Amino acid sequence: MIVLGDKEHYKGIGQIKYEGKDSDNPLAFRYYNPEQIVAGKTMREHFKFAISYWHSFGGNGSDLFGQGTHHFAWNEAREPIRAAKIRADAAFEFISKMGFDYFCFHDFDLVQEGENLGQSEVRLATMTSYLNEKKAGSEIKVLWGTANCFSNARYMNGAATNPDFKIVARAAAQVKLAIDATIALGGENYAFWGGREGYMSLLNTDMKRELDHMGQFLIQARDYARAQGFKGNFLLEPKPMEPLKHQYDFDCATTIGFLRQYGLEKDFKINIEVNHATLAQHTFQHELEVAAQSGMLGSIDANRGDYQNGWDTAQFPNNIQEVTEAMLVFLKAGGLQGGGVNFDAKIRRNSTDMEDIFLAHIGGVDTFARALLTADKIITSSPYDSLRKQRYNSFDSGKGKEFEEGKLNFTDLYHIAKENDPIELQSGKQELFENIINRYI
Amino acid sequence: MIVLGDKEHYKGIGQIKYEGKDSDNPLAFRYYNPEQIVAGKTMREHFKFAISYWHSFGGNGSDLFGQGTHHFAWNEAREPIRAAKIRADAAFEFISKMGFDYFCFHDFDLVQEGENLGQSEVRLATMTSYLNEKKAGSEIKVLWGTANCFSNARYMNGAATNPDFKIVARAAAQVKLAIDATIALGGENYAFWGGREGYMSLLNTDMKRELDHMGQFLIQARDYARAQGFKGNFLLEPKPMEPLKHQYDFDCATTIGFLRQYGLEKDFKINIEVNHATLAQHTFQHELEVAAQSGMLGSIDANRGDYQNGWDTAQFPNNIQEVTEAMLVFLKAGGLQGGGVNFDAKIRRNSTDMEDIFLAHIGGVDTFARALLTADKIITSSPYDSLRKQRYNSFDSGKGKEFEEGKLNFTDLYHIAKENDPIELQSGKQELFENIINRYI
Amino acid sequence: MIVLGDKEHYKGIGQIKYEGKDSDNPLAFRYYNPEQIVAGKTMREHFKFAISYWHSFGGNGSDLFGQGTHHFAWNEAREPIRAAKIRADAAFEFISKMGFDYFCFHDFDLVQEGENLGQSEVRLATMTSYLNEKKAGSEIKVLWGTANCFSNARYMNGAATNPDFKIVARAAAQVKLAIDATIALGGENYAFWGGREGYMSLLNTDMKRELDHMGQFLIQARDYARAQGFKGNFLLEPKPMEPLKHQYDFDCATTIGFLRQYGLEKDFKINIEVNHATLAQHTFQHELEVAAQSGMLGSIDANRGDYQNGWDTAQFPNNIQEVTEAMLVFLKAGGLQGGGVNFDAKIRRNSTDMEDIFLAHIGGVDTFARALLTADKIITSSPYDSLRKQRYNSFDSGKGKEFEEGKLNFTDLYHIAKENDPIELQSGKQELFENIINRYI
Amino acid sequence: MIVLGDKEHYKGIGQIKYEGKDSDNPLAFRYYNPEQIVAGKTMREHFKFAISYWHSFGGNGSDLFGQGTHHFAWNEAREPIRAAKIRADAAFEFISKMGFDYFCFHDFDLVQEGENLGQSEVRLATMTSYLNEKKAGSEIKVLWGTANCFSNARYMNGAATNPDFKIVARAAAQVKLAIDATIALGGENYAFWGGREGYMSLLNTDMKRELDHMGQFLIQARDYARAQGFKGNFLLEPKPMEPLKHQYDFDCATTIGFLRQYGLEKDFKINIEVNHATLAQHTFQHELEVAAQSGMLGSIDANRGDYQNGWDTAQFPNNIQEVTEAMLVFLKAGGLQGGGVNFDAKIRRNSTDMEDIFLAHIGGVDTFARALLTADKIITSSPYDSLRKQRYNSFDSGKGKEFEEGKLNFTDLYHIAKENDPIELQSGKQELFENIINRYI
Repeated sequence: MIVLGDKEHYKGIGQIKYEGKDSDNPLAFRYYNPEQIVAGKTMREHFKFAISYWHSFGGNGSDLFGQGTHHFAWNEAREPIRAAKIRADAAFEFISKMGFDYFCFHDFDLVQEGENLGQSEVRLATMTSYLNEKKAGSEIKVLWGTANCFSNARYMNGAATNPDFKIVARAAAQVKLAIDATIALGGENYAFWGGREGYMSLLNTDMKRELDHMGQFLIQARDYARAQGFKGNFLLEPKPMEPLKHQYDFDCATTIGFLRQYGLEKDFKINIEVNHATLAQHTFQHELEVAAQSGMLGSIDANRGDYQNGWDTAQFPNNIQEVTEAMLVFLKAGGLQGGGVNFDAKIRRNSTDMEDIFLAHIGGVDTFARALLTADKIITSSPYDSLRKQRYNSFDSGKGKEFEEGKLNFTDLYHIAKENDPIELQSGKQELFENIINRYI
Repeated sequence: MIVLGDKEHYKGIGQIKYEGKDSDNPLAFRYYNPEQIVAGKTMREHFKFAISYWHSFGGNGSDLFGQGTHHFAWNEAREPIRAAKIRADAAFEFISKMGFDYFCFHDFDLVQEGENLGQSEVRLATMTSYLNEKKAGSEIKVLWGTANCFSNARYMNGAATNPDFKIVARAAAQVKLAIDATIALGGENYAFWGGREGYMSLLNTDMKRELDHMGQFLIQARDYARAQGFKGNFLLEPKPMEPLKHQYDFDCATTIGFLRQYGLEKDFKINIEVNHATLAQHTFQHELEVAAQSGMLGSIDANRGDYQNGWDTAQFPNNIQEVTEAMLVFLKAGGLQGGGVNFDAKIRRNSTDMEDIFLAHIGGVDTFARALLTADKIITSSPYDSLRKQRYNSFDSGKGKEFEEGKLNFTDLYHIAKENDPIELQSGKQELFENIINRYI
Repeated sequence: MIVLGDKEHYKGIGQIKYEGKDSDNPLAFRYYNPEQIVAGKTMREHFKFAISYWHSFGGNGSDLFGQGTHHFAWNEAREPIRAAKIRADAAFEFISKMGFDYFCFHDFDLVQEGENLGQSEVRLATMTSYLNEKKAGSEIKVLWGTANCFSNARYMNGAATNPDFKIVARAAAQVKLAIDATIALGGENYAFWGGREGYMSLLNTDMKRELDHMGQFLIQARDYARAQGFKGNFLLEPKPMEPLKHQYDFDCATTIGFLRQYGLEKDFKINIEVNHATLAQHTFQHELEVAAQSGMLGSIDANRGDYQNGWDTAQFPNNIQEVTEAMLVFLKAGGLQGGGVNFDAKIRRNSTDMEDIFLAHIGGVDTFARALLTADKIITSSPYDSLRKQRYNSFDSGKGKEFEEGKLNFTDLYHIAKENDPIELQSGKQELFENIINRYI
Repeated sequence: MIVLGDKEHYKGIGQIKYEGKDSDNPLAFRYYNPEQIVAGKTMREHFKFAISYWHSFGGNGSDLFGQGTHHFAWNEAREPIRAAKIRADAAFEFISKMGFDYFCFHDFDLVQEGENLGQSEVRLATMTSYLNEKKAGSEIKVLWGTANCFSNARYMNGAATNPDFKIVARAAAQVKLAIDATIALGGENYAFWGGREGYMSLLNTDMKRELDHMGQFLIQARDYARAQGFKGNFLLEPKPMEPLKHQYDFDCATTIGFLRQYGLEKDFKINIEVNHATLAQHTFQHELEVAAQSGMLGSIDANRGDYQNGWDTAQFPNNIQEVTEAMLVFLKAGGLQGGGVNFDAKIRRNSTDMEDIFLAHIGGVDTFARALLTADKIITSSPYDSLRKQRYNSFDSGKGKEFEEGKLNFTDLYHIAKENDPIELQSGKQELFENIINRYI
């Protein structure tokens, strides 16, 4: 099952296996048992775990205050195609050793961008072929592809929202090629993250015009992909800020409002990243709930932020409580629509051992698996669900139901109120609900 | 022009007048010259300044950690109607001394809530009459009325979104009476602030059901008011959190999305509060812009937060730069739709002199007036506007225009990109824009 | 063991007992087994759990946006001494049913403040006697007493740091009486929280002079108490802001620096509140560590904040991971110096059932107990401690040790560096450390 | 006065001159008139404006999400010494065109770090000579030098606080060379910024041991520099977080406490950066005040943050109100001790015109100059100072003075309180103070 290239990159590390929660082996799963059935599906099906090509194979540990610390063979080869193939080999080795089924990529994760559009096109085609060969010998699939329309200097003022039409066109061309590559690789979804769609300063920005351009851009992207036969979901990933002062896809509510305004709500789902949620002052579970209730809970970018730091730390998930509450929403929503759980997380700058990337993913996987098991138990074995439902039972019948159905006007309600004065208070029982969660963790 | 009741409350303070920017009189306007024309309207018309009945006549300086410090005659009378009339007299004295045309109120700012709905109804009717008499002898009008559906214990789990239908009905009855009072007082708008619409804990909350109830509630409120002949705007005021962990009307984008989803966007506008904007991690000007571009810039609740504190400090506006940038958006949007600038601000707990409330309002008024003058000069005398417009001129004609009109698909754009490779970078000139603003402050 | 007064307030709830982690009884401890020995001490000795008289018996569920929701017998009696005795009865009933050994109080938690200092003095003396009678029939003790020098209007500009000397003197008189009461009740510690020591606006503040006054005030307070024979610790509790814009005891580091500057470091320890830590942008465990390394880890005010809200939500602890990491620091520091774990937390405004206060405390107690057990296992059974120690072993001998001992100057270090170039990187293994923690939760 | 190298880098831009506040020339000062006397000193003397070598000549516009956008000749030369000389030429051209007297540098701003310590030493010596030649033909001086002990991968776990002694020694060697270079260049101060002194995770950190190492390191650095005859100040610059989760020099109060603990308070002053202040939840003026009252207000790193973003945006100063309030503290403290105002700010990623760096500095300079003029007027012409002093006059004589002098114990104070009950409240007049500030802006 392990897919090696010319050489083994992660020597001494074999297939990561489930050993149960009492295992002290740091290189084993303690909760993630891929074929174990929870709430009617295997864990593998629930999660569709994916690695992020960029952080795990594109990053080098550098930050704004320091140079790279991770020295990987694939960053050292000078010739772009050669480097890209080594990187692909390492990625497939890693994915297969982890037992994951999926990866996610930006166009220029696969291979270094060319000096011009034509050269990029050729390089992408070369690597698409190479990856299809790798995939053929494995079970590994593409969860989603996307175009990196934020790193290149040309996008410093925006991509789809750039004030210069030539750059909007350039971004469209790049997305076209990324869609082509995603289709060629059998990608199940196609994603957008608008890291440069927003503003550095409102003073020099025509927000309305930029939003219209973004709407138009996504409409054309969708139409192009559909015309090429793409059947998957489009994913839009909110983030409130960073790198910009403000990004247009601020959070789920804002993004869903935008999608509806431009008639995109049928084709697009939301890709929710944990750390982006908290940067927007929301919990992860809040964002899942907002997406779910609009039928747009598409996919998850799993990571975590630091509650005392105000930027995207993108750490691997390890917060058992946070993820347990998220899995409650996840299970009640019936899971993800088309997407999976992609580890959009990076090991720390000072995590320089080759095994660290395994430890990080194992910690993240087990956090999700454990949370799923706990959430399932809470739903099936505890009074949690019935207590919650019961709070609203005055709307399940009688006048409350009529209100829900729009049958009562304010005069009706006024008379009902007159008859029901005073009204007894009902405790919200928040502490009880919280204790129930901890009972099962 | 000064409207006194039985006695003068603010002795020694007369009519506040415009004395020009070199005045050292702390009890004079230095910038606000009501009849001065700016951008085609008088300042009076632009702003429609209003006092907030609650903070200025309802507050007593208490906070979560301490008892009241402000001792006012109207808080000391025991009998509710007597107290309410003293309060009204003081309010009219204050408003007229300030030279304001407007006030805003919650139902139970006018008079203490009764022990039951019937008693509240009678009290409100009494005070509506009394206020109409006061109004008759003055130029003072109602900018907007609203119902306080957040202070009473019964709303601890929500008003329109309460899990108990009986409380939803009670809230509807209360809003009905507040609408009646607003109409009776000739109120130009009717406002909603959902201080208890949201959640303390997502664990015990069915968010979808609650949002549907809130939509239904607002639909019925609108239909009721329209049936009574009310022609004004409905205003919905976003706030992201506090008192709750999360409030549904998080920010302008979220609120506009909600209004559109429930078909309310024609009747409702947004009432933007500065401190609520910053609590949602937005600038004031950002929120104005978001509302304006949807045609929903209804009214302003003027105050300011503290950038290092994470709660609603609701201080009087004094930030010249913040308000100048806001007035740029304000002027370009053509001003407010139906609303005005209501000082939803409170003097500090330790501002205990009777003159302090005048000083606070004067500072706020002058901050807005000065900002309006500056913004007008920036627009009319500086290159600000043309520089901004010029950034987008590639969309004013040719292929850019075709893109805006939806005439170019991704294949077209791909070919355009191929022909325009590489593309020269255009500086965003942020520092230049910022210097222009400061040039005129 | 249950201590009742004239009547039983919490009917239907008996002694809360340890039933083990598989218990589904919401009114039982699942982890807190008072006599169980962990790391050489019983849990009872480790924690010295205390109730906060103010939140649990002084609060009524009101917040800045709404009136009280909790209706308790002791809030309804009109006559102050009568009300105070009912409150004391209820408190002792609750404490004894919970099996706690301690409570903490402010002077005017015990009884409503009098109309003047003399009346307050008499009332406090009356209640001190009454409480000593109650104590005599129970095992219940005072963990610490304090004076509420923040609620009364007179402290709106500060207590010890008030610009008006008369108010400083008044605060001193109040603290004197609170110290007297604490000594009379056998209090083990005496605490200060400077909720009004700081500023609303730096513009009107002479910070240096105020800090000197605060230093002088604490010196005199200490000298007075020591002269009365008080042997316990003084505790100073940091909070960065709220109610003020800035409070002088911002965090542990600031407070320790202040204590050292005024020569108070021998007598004072720090009382760390979780939510105050996070408001200062620190983790709870960070603040524990800062206090511990200065030998000043005195006591804990147990609660938690909301990571998305910027004010003191003071919720009951339920964050297993946060408290586990805190207990690692706690155990390694050898526990608390004189203090205990005081639940400075309040049930939610909408938690209106009489049992809710039990559920809340049980959840908090079990969170600490479970965390202690987990932390102990991590220290005794996992490689955590040795991995951490090993990181620093280059300082345990040789040149590194000489450096620590101050024996190497920069020229020496320069030569050592020349000989050791380049240097191999050592992974920080953060993900491994994190996985070890989760292994034991 | 303009100092050119082989070629002119900023063509078309000449000497920036003072033209007065009505000038519309974007390349002129409107407030900064270097020889104008304010409060007894020229503006030039007050500010000692400096450019930051790193941002203005080391940056390329890249951020965590994107590659460089600024293409400068000095970044394109391959050979390190050649590149360094071009950079120095451009820097001197820029500094002289701006009319600044100073620059600040890190060792490896001057020239790219060598492959080993020896090579770095040689390169630094080469560039020190070259810069001394440049200086000889100009008025330009060094405000402070420092060592970059945060960018190199070797410092990923800390420099002075690295768990590996070899790296501590390496950092010491680097600081030794930077001190040597600073002395050689006649630097007036020597600075430290601990960007890697702190932790990513408390779990793997022995904070106490690391702080002791940091203390020892600074003691040895000081002793070395003093032994070489260095007479200037050492500066320590607080920052609470970023790049790390927590940095030890969190804010002024923490840093001053640390310096006192290790006996460094005589030799060290604080270098306050605006954006670091706001990241620590303080205002700029607060941090100035804290440093000033300890006699440690050494120098300023002028920039600004974004109040809605949680990272170091390091924008050029443009906030008139913020800087005016800061200049009030600055003037009352008697200015800076040895340091100056260094623009530790970067033009935006999308500010790609060669003139943008001039516009940015001009905006910043004028913001400070205008604020100084305003603050001076507030102090000399308004009641601001006397109102503030008057608040504390009960301590200027009588019992209040005795309290300040430590002559009153708690029993004395108790008796004074008894005689002064009740006490009248004194308004804090915050709104009046705020209006006075705006009166003069």
